[in-house]
Amino acid sequence: MQQKVLITDCADARGLIAQVTQVCAKHDLNIINNKEFVDSHNKRFYMRTELEGVFNDEVLLQQFAQVLPQQHHVKLVDNSKKRIVIMVTKEAHCVGDILMKAYYGGLDVEIAAVVGNYPELAALVEKFDVPYHFISHQGLTRAAHEQAMLDVILPYQAHYVVLAKYMRVLTPHFVSQFENRIINIHHSFLPAFIGASPYQQAWERGVKIIGATAHFVNNCLDEGPIIKQNVISVDHSYSAQELAHQGRDVEKSVLSKALQLVLNEQVLVYGNKTIVF
Amino acid sequence: MQQKVLITDCADARGLIAQVTQVCAKHDLNIINNKEFVDSHNKRFYMRTELEGVFNDEVLLQQFAQVLPQQHHVKLVDNSKKRIVIMVTKEAHCVGDILMKAYYGGLDVEIAAVVGNYPELAALVEKFDVPYHFISHQGLTRAAHEQAMLDVILPYQAHYVVLAKYMRVLTPHFVSQFENRIINIHHSFLPAFIGASPYQQAWERGVKIIGATAHFVNNCLDEGPIIKQNVISVDHSYSAQELAHQGRDVEKSVLSKALQLVLNEQVLVYGNKTIVF
Amino acid sequence: MQQKVLITDCADARGLIAQVTQVCAKHDLNIINNKEFVDSHNKRFYMRTELEGVFNDEVLLQQFAQVLPQQHHVKLVDNSKKRIVIMVTKEAHCVGDILMKAYYGGLDVEIAAVVGNYPELAALVEKFDVPYHFISHQGLTRAAHEQAMLDVILPYQAHYVVLAKYMRVLTPHFVSQFENRIINIHHSFLPAFIGASPYQQAWERGVKIIGATAHFVNNCLDEGPIIKQNVISVDHSYSAQELAHQGRDVEKSVLSKALQLVLNEQVLVYGNKTIVF
Amino acid sequence: MQQKVLITDCADARGLIAQVTQVCAKHDLNIINNKEFVDSHNKRFYMRTELEGVFNDEVLLQQFAQVLPQQHHVKLVDNSKKRIVIMVTKEAHCVGDILMKAYYGGLDVEIAAVVGNYPELAALVEKFDVPYHFISHQGLTRAAHEQAMLDVILPYQAHYVVLAKYMRVLTPHFVSQFENRIINIHHSFLPAFIGASPYQQAWERGVKIIGATAHFVNNCLDEGPIIKQNVISVDHSYSAQELAHQGRDVEKSVLSKALQLVLNEQVLVYGNKTIVF
Repeated sequence: MQQKVLITDCADARGLIAQVTQVCAKHDLNIINNKEFVDSHNKRFYMRTELEGVFNDEVLLQQFAQVLPQQHHVKLVDNSKKRIVIMVTKEAHCVGDILMKAYYGGLDVEIAAVVGNYPELAALVEKFDVPYHFISHQGLTRAAHEQAMLDVILPYQAHYVVLAKYMRVLTPHFVSQFENRIINIHHSFLPAFIGASPYQQAWERGVKIIGATAHFVNNCLDEGPIIKQNVISVDHSYSAQELAHQGRDVEKSVLSKALQLVLNEQVLVYGNKTIVF
Repeated sequence: MQQKVLITDCADARGLIAQVTQVCAKHDLNIINNKEFVDSHNKRFYMRTELEGVFNDEVLLQQFAQVLPQQHHVKLVDNSKKRIVIMVTKEAHCVGDILMKAYYGGLDVEIAAVVGNYPELAALVEKFDVPYHFISHQGLTRAAHEQAMLDVILPYQAHYVVLAKYMRVLTPHFVSQFENRIINIHHSFLPAFIGASPYQQAWERGVKIIGATAHFVNNCLDEGPIIKQNVISVDHSYSAQELAHQGRDVEKSVLSKALQLVLNEQVLVYGNKTIVF
Repeated sequence: MQQKVLITDCADARGLIAQVTQVCAKHDLNIINNKEFVDSHNKRFYMRTELEGVFNDEVLLQQFAQVLPQQHHVKLVDNSKKRIVIMVTKEAHCVGDILMKAYYGGLDVEIAAVVGNYPELAALVEKFDVPYHFISHQGLTRAAHEQAMLDVILPYQAHYVVLAKYMRVLTPHFVSQFENRIINIHHSFLPAFIGASPYQQAWERGVKIIGATAHFVNNCLDEGPIIKQNVISVDHSYSAQELAHQGRDVEKSVLSKALQLVLNEQVLVYGNKTIVF
Repeated sequence: MQQKVLITDCADARGLIAQVTQVCAKHDLNIINNKEFVDSHNKRFYMRTELEGVFNDEVLLQQFAQVLPQQHHVKLVDNSKKRIVIMVTKEAHCVGDILMKAYYGGLDVEIAAVVGNYPELAALVEKFDVPYHFISHQGLTRAAHEQAMLDVILPYQAHYVVLAKYMRVLTPHFVSQFENRIINIHHSFLPAFIGASPYQQAWERGVKIIGATAHFVNNCLDEGPIIKQNVISVDHSYSAQELAHQGRDVEKSVLSKALQLVLNEQVLVYGNKTIVF
């Protein structure tokens, strides 16, 4: 007996759940959990189905294709451990949290490697027997630097790339290698305080709440479909530096939770949004 | 075109979703939203389906009965406004919030009447043109008092009875008239600080959080399936009285949200628990 | 025995707390609670002191003036009930919550009057025996409309004006009548989604959190010193309309809490920020 | 220029703040932050004062003693790094979070050693170059086991002992060695679900919220003055095991925050409660 997750996404129509679940029933697959959502504005159907049984993927996918409208996406994902590559700059809190959680089983993930444009985090990463690739951007064009990183990252065949406070903008060329597979964490609130020194901006504005947003990266570093957001309360007594310090906790916690959701196949991207089942 | 909610609950088996949704498809009903849960510990299947179309309830229910295992519950609920009776003692915050939200459409509910064992809240309730029945418990046995209340409440044929800080224990006889249809709000944390003066107990213990729990009432006033819980942060500077004052806000907000969930047919009771879809 | 709150604000210097509290001690005033903050960036001292005893305000203020640096503000506020005027348009949730809380003592405030540019809320307000002034903006210049409102509002000599979803921009002339005494509630996040249809914008962006900000109004309607912010979690299944519906709850709750803080003299404005003691 | 924190605690009396701050002023100490609380029920005065300047501790403490009532406690703490010993059993999440935060400066603390009654966590701890002492309880009386641990722990002269999921009850003898200096984290809610298998109990009860409480340990392991509490929302779909899994996150986060507050000298114990300034 195996467990797999079926993700279905197509134009809305009557009888879709019945059609799909009948195929599952014919294969004697048990449905453990099923969640469905219709975006009535865009007339699109989304479903996530946890299945248990003996899977003949090829036949199943063929049969799903027969019962679904022409423009559809179906994917059947097993629950084997996913592989990620983490990209960092100098800050340890996000990568540290993922390393630690992966170590004790709080995140069920294989960290294939960490790639950084500074050497600072090598020692930490290597404590966990994860290879650290230091690829400085100094003296390189952006294109050359990204290519050097791609040369290191692509062979790992990672399911996802996690930007754990990687502080450089990625070009569309880089992003296009991993469509909806790069996860970023953004300090403060998206879409507020876009630009440099957000904690300084937040301090000047006297905000009573600071937050973090984890999102997939599309062409613009700090935009793209939002996966998870959270906030913490702050007050007048925090300096800009202390806001940033507190912000780290919410950043690392939001990024870890977003990664967990993605690894669980709970996140479907549609347009510039996500459905989180 | 009408909208209805289908609630299905039965022993778990392969193919249940397919069977039920096929019946819906045959009737040309569109599924707007579908959520399913299997309690694998107790091998029981629960599903909530939002449907849109033209309904022939009798035929539909017959056909569901044919495809489901023998021991099942199916219910098809339309989205007409539900009717509640509210029971109170002297505190205004919970009943006030429900009255106000019903007034401006924040809760889609008809408040048939408010019944209180003290006269204090009559003036407030009557501002909203809702009848207030003052039924004192003084000089009456518990049985006689409850019968007097039942004589007033039952004719309203309310879908739910809401205990908005009704401070007397209800007997199993009273509760049995409204199985899983009485909603209570309990200050502080269930199951902590059971008994008198919970805020005083919380103050003595120096808690940093206080909360409220909304639940269905079964035989024991402060137990029964939990619908919704929430908390707020407090600190050393709060007196027991201020804790109670702050507690009011979380009580009223949790009760209103629980009521909303119940009115939306999002809450299924099973055993001493709820599924909130 | 009376209770008063002393608010002190001046250039920072050594010995300020000692100087001020010595004056209090000489008058045999008991300090129940004292909080102090120095903005080290701007070298400014802020203190809030709850005092109990017999007060000779004139002498006290003279003596405080003698011990403080030249550029200082001192205010001694008694705990008598404050008076507010509420401005509204058509939405009931914020004004309804304040009316209800004032009714049952959840907010210790006198609502002198409600002023609206539409007639819709008159019936609700009058249930609570509060005068409702309907002053339509139709056919009036902005200046003439605001003057008509000022003619009604100013005679009430309110301590604060609360914009409970008053949907028109106020001119600097109007605002200047009530410096740091107008409290507004802003849907969504400040400073994000400034402009029209914020819930629509939030929906399009697929946010996972929506919030509300209560702030004093200065020249710009949706800016000014922030008093209180809070958020709630939302997900993909909410339409823009449902986001707005959910947003109401957080709006009303944030506005009520901000008002409570202001009424308790816990909020000091400095520059474009607040200190909330 | 140095920074120190002054903690004062004595019977309440008029003029205390003036007296204490005058002494500070005489020594030309600048007060950066001052918070004061009077427990009016027990007539006791508590104050926390952040000072900056040149300190002559001996003279200062003498002068404070002269101006305070006879039964008082005064302590003047510098902001040098505190030393902790962590006690563990088998679970990594709490100790892992503290190790990681200490590593990257998220917690300003020196971890002198980790002591465990199982060997499982040695490898993790040693990654961070912190000594791990495995002291099995097997074959030892409780007294002998605790003595073996004390023999290891006491020489470190730690300011605090942190129980990071140490799963054995400590005797009053052990506890008395570290009065109000042992910090514990308790799954679920204190005082609810006391006893074995709290997550199982919580699951059976169908709770919608689970939490964690960090507290000082007095004679009873799961009681003692509460420092920090927090909760997360859960739902029907979580198994008891998943509740425990989710609970880990809130446990580690609450313990780290409590430890931070204690290290900052923000926590005063009084009776069975804390004041958190």
